[in-house]
Amino acid sequence: MTAHAIAVDVGGTDMKAALVAVGRDTARQLRHARRPTPRGSDGAATADLVVEAVAELVSELRSGADSVDAVGVVVPGVVDEARGVGVFSANLGWRDVPLRDRLAARIDLPLAFGHDVRAGGLAEARLGAARGMRDVVVLPIGTGIAAALVLDGRLYSGGGFAGEIGHIDVGHGEPCGCGSNGCVEAMASSAAVARRYRARTGRDVSGADVAAAVRTGDPDAQAVWQDAIDALARGLLVLITVAAPECVVLGGGFAQAGDLLVDPLRARLDGMLAAYHRRPHLKLAELGDTAGCLGAALLATEGLKTP
Amino acid sequence: MTAHAIAVDVGGTDMKAALVAVGRDTARQLRHARRPTPRGSDGAATADLVVEAVAELVSELRSGADSVDAVGVVVPGVVDEARGVGVFSANLGWRDVPLRDRLAARIDLPLAFGHDVRAGGLAEARLGAARGMRDVVVLPIGTGIAAALVLDGRLYSGGGFAGEIGHIDVGHGEPCGCGSNGCVEAMASSAAVARRYRARTGRDVSGADVAAAVRTGDPDAQAVWQDAIDALARGLLVLITVAAPECVVLGGGFAQAGDLLVDPLRARLDGMLAAYHRRPHLKLAELGDTAGCLGAALLATEGLKTP
Repeated sequence: MTAHAIAVDVGGTDMKAALVAVGRDTARQLRHARRPTPRGSDGAATADLVVEAVAELVSELRSGADSVDAVGVVVPGVVDEARGVGVFSANLGWRDVPLRDRLAARIDLPLAFGHDVRAGGLAEARLGAARGMRDVVVLPIGTGIAAALVLDGRLYSGGGFAGEIGHIDVGHGEPCGCGSNGCVEAMASSAAVARRYRARTGRDVSGADVAAAVRTGDPDAQAVWQDAIDALARGLLVLITVAAPECVVLGGGFAQAGDLLVDPLRARLDGMLAAYHRRPHLKLAELGDTAGCLGAALLATEGLKTP
Repeated sequence: MTAHAIAVDVGGTDMKAALVAVGRDTARQLRHARRPTPRGSDGAATADLVVEAVAELVSELRSGADSVDAVGVVVPGVVDEARGVGVFSANLGWRDVPLRDRLAARIDLPLAFGHDVRAGGLAEARLGAARGMRDVVVLPIGTGIAAALVLDGRLYSGGGFAGEIGHIDVGHGEPCGCGSNGCVEAMASSAAVARRYRARTGRDVSGADVAAAVRTGDPDAQAVWQDAIDALARGLLVLITVAAPECVVLGGGFAQAGDLLVDPLRARLDGMLAAYHRRPHLKLAELGDTAGCLGAALLATEGLKTP
């Protein structure tokens, strides 16, 4: 029942790769490798270099391994899994690159191609904080905020567009980088928290610094944090109303705030949920930065079951 | 490739039943029957009578039919398909009735049990306005507003709670029957449109009457209609942001307003959709009040494929 997959998680800075043993409800990294993500003169050149580097990582992890059944590769940005296309990556600069076909031409194993955040969400749902549950929303909170939806046990991507709750208007009225007002992200991303604290105090800090200041009783930090919790709760309420998950998993840099994030968010949500809402568990992500690779391995071995 | 199913759509007033031939992308009603929904002294008694009446309808449609492969029954209210339970019906009065098991004990054919609106949505997605598309939201607008979600070609119910966009807060601030403020339903249901027109004019009318008055240039009707379109557009924007459908199908009594509904809604949405949104087709439902039965037949024959 155990399959072996090579998983590659292409990030903006690093590429993480692993040989993963995937069982029924388990996944274990047997070996791993990491290298900087290569950069070309433009997005197309970067895509060429990334394809080459992925093929080399796969070859490296494959040598010496007993048998490898499949390869899973996940990339950032906007990804259309159905067409196998990297639609857009602000960080890596590519647009509409048929990455799945390009990778398949270089790798002679069954290949799955996906999105880093959604794959990480699938891993949290199957193996991490929400294991055993079928309807799960995984919400990494970092520079931006977008959810991965695992519905009836399967990743749902909506052509790459599903789960964009960072841009739900929750009524606070502040402008967002996207051009709209009131977006969850404009109040609750780690970048927004840092920016809003700086605006109040003149001090240049990170989102994590603000969380630390909340614990020491800094009133500016507490005010900014409260606004972030409120915007997040309103965004989650919308997500719960539409997608009705059994569990919401909070991840990304912000989740390192732990109970400082989960406790007030749960209290705020409890006050808003009505009889027509499913009441989800609220949990912290468990897999950290291995989620992407584990998710890529799950995608790879899932592909084996549906020829 | 053609299967034969008996479908029963239990409504608040009538029970509609049909013998349906289900092909790969088709469903055709061969015979049908209808009778009033029986009522007992309380919800439990009503459930008993409904189970009996469904069994009789099935028996009636089965006699003389060459062969019947399966039965599909759909009911209104809150339905948990996974557990096979009618959780709640305001109209029929039952609470937590294990209808699937009760029906299965009376009917010696493979049985599927579901929710009337979601089953109708599945029919519109597979056979009606959105045929050929995989990610579809079907939104009947009547006394209430709740969406059926067909994602990756499969009905998603979220334990019976998914798609409750009638109770998304879109910021208009008016109170809703649910106890919150600003709900889509409080401005855009046919009941809300009738109530708000009455409040302005003192005239007692239906939602359909208001639509007719919009066409004749009645300024009160136009104002009320414009508010409804705006609330609907904001609710749809949320749905699109989270669920990213390829197609939104508008149904229910309100959809009879046709272009009066679709054209301004499309224009309003066009002004709000951003690069991170999937742009869905906006269509009117095609199957009318046969959608529930056709959907029940689809559920019944789908059950045959997954033993």
